[in-house]
Amino acid sequence: MIPEDHPRYHALVRREKIADSARAGIVAMEGVSAHGRGETFDYLIGERTTESALLAEKTAAAMLLAAEHPVISVNGNTAALAAEEIAALQKACGAKVEVNLFHRTEERMEKITHLLEEAGVSVLTGTFERLIPLSHDRAICLHEGIGSADLVLVPLEDGDRCEALRRMGIKVITIDLNPLSRTSKTADLTIVDELTRALPNITLACRNPDRDLIASCDNMKFLHAALDEIQSRLSHALD
Amino acid sequence: MIPEDHPRYHALVRREKIADSARAGIVAMEGVSAHGRGETFDYLIGERTTESALLAEKTAAAMLLAAEHPVISVNGNTAALAAEEIAALQKACGAKVEVNLFHRTEERMEKITHLLEEAGVSVLTGTFERLIPLSHDRAICLHEGIGSADLVLVPLEDGDRCEALRRMGIKVITIDLNPLSRTSKTADLTIVDELTRALPNITLACRNPDRDLIASCDNMKFLHAALDEIQSRLSHALD
Repeated sequence: MIPEDHPRYHALVRREKIADSARAGIVAMEGVSAHGRGETFDYLIGERTTESALLAEKTAAAMLLAAEHPVISVNGNTAALAAEEIAALQKACGAKVEVNLFHRTEERMEKITHLLEEAGVSVLTGTFERLIPLSHDRAICLHEGIGSADLVLVPLEDGDRCEALRRMGIKVITIDLNPLSRTSKTADLTIVDELTRALPNITLACRNPDRDLIASCDNMKFLHAALDEIQSRLSHALD
Repeated sequence: MIPEDHPRYHALVRREKIADSARAGIVAMEGVSAHGRGETFDYLIGERTTESALLAEKTAAAMLLAAEHPVISVNGNTAALAAEEIAALQKACGAKVEVNLFHRTEERMEKITHLLEEAGVSVLTGTFERLIPLSHDRAICLHEGIGSADLVLVPLEDGDRCEALRRMGIKVITIDLNPLSRTSKTADLTIVDELTRALPNITLACRNPDRDLIASCDNMKFLHAALDEIQSRLSHALD
């Protein structure tokens, strides 16, 4: 048991959740080390939602509500960490939720779908087809889901897929703690924040969306703000 | 298969090695995410040995050769990534090698010992006792190993243990990619470099040790140099 007054309580709980979910076959082994990589970036931005990340989250809410066919793409790590937060966001913005895995097996697809449904998510089902121009299994999606989406929210995405979605003319919002990743640089909007902090902020902003934020959205500005944040924290880190 | 001309080939090979070793029961699930955390720091220092890290490695060689009872403490991640590099260093500096695990089970102890021996390491055996003042299983060590060491090289260490060893009057050299970790700040000497790059550099320096480096060793200087390196790389990262 991690004591609740531990200064890094939430980070340690998430770390344990990822390890447990890997043992349960929900998170892929590659997802465990990916979580670790993100954890370092979270530590560097101070394990909190920065002002610019909050603005990105409000922008994401406006974009989700303005889209005609928004889809939330969920992988193993997202399901393990934030099934309930996904359910709440789906209720707030009406997006479809589709499971999409890099390390895809039928068993993992079923486990993750079950976990999401238990948390109250309505998970899209149907016949999966290879619709995204990619060689790996993330190409496989549902025609009535990502296949016909005009906007996809993809937390914890890989760079290839983000590029492929954009080439298909789909708008991409990502949640990525690494402001230097290919995904971050390629997405229309990058939220540099930890998943379980970002999702409730987007959900909350859906109550009072500000459509003006869409036109003024500048992804590189968000990435620079995150980097500045890290830089300024590092400059005092050994004082 | 990862193509050898991939710009991040070595990092991807290590990532795969850690995942495979976790599936084989050598690396603990917690070790997989710890590897991910380190990977981000390596990415930030440019996945190469910096000038100051090389100086720290030369200093480590001199300290290992000057010690009376040097011990290399090996955990699951270290064995998975660098069994051969440990064997070469042991030959070069004559240190004892002891297996010490945070997530300790007899099965893992045996698997790791076997892996090291296969790579040519002479692994210390005997009756394990709880000799380090710590509540967790890293307290358990060998009287003729860490229990009577004057210097311990502990790659990929946790903060608690580093402090406990120092309180016992043992000099600690660590290899840690995070220059801000408690271990880095507590150790007598921190090598901020990736394990499989650091170990061969120490081994090489054992051929021609420079004892003057020991007296001039300033751990905080090494940490500041690593942080400066990260800062300077980040300041151009989005150009």
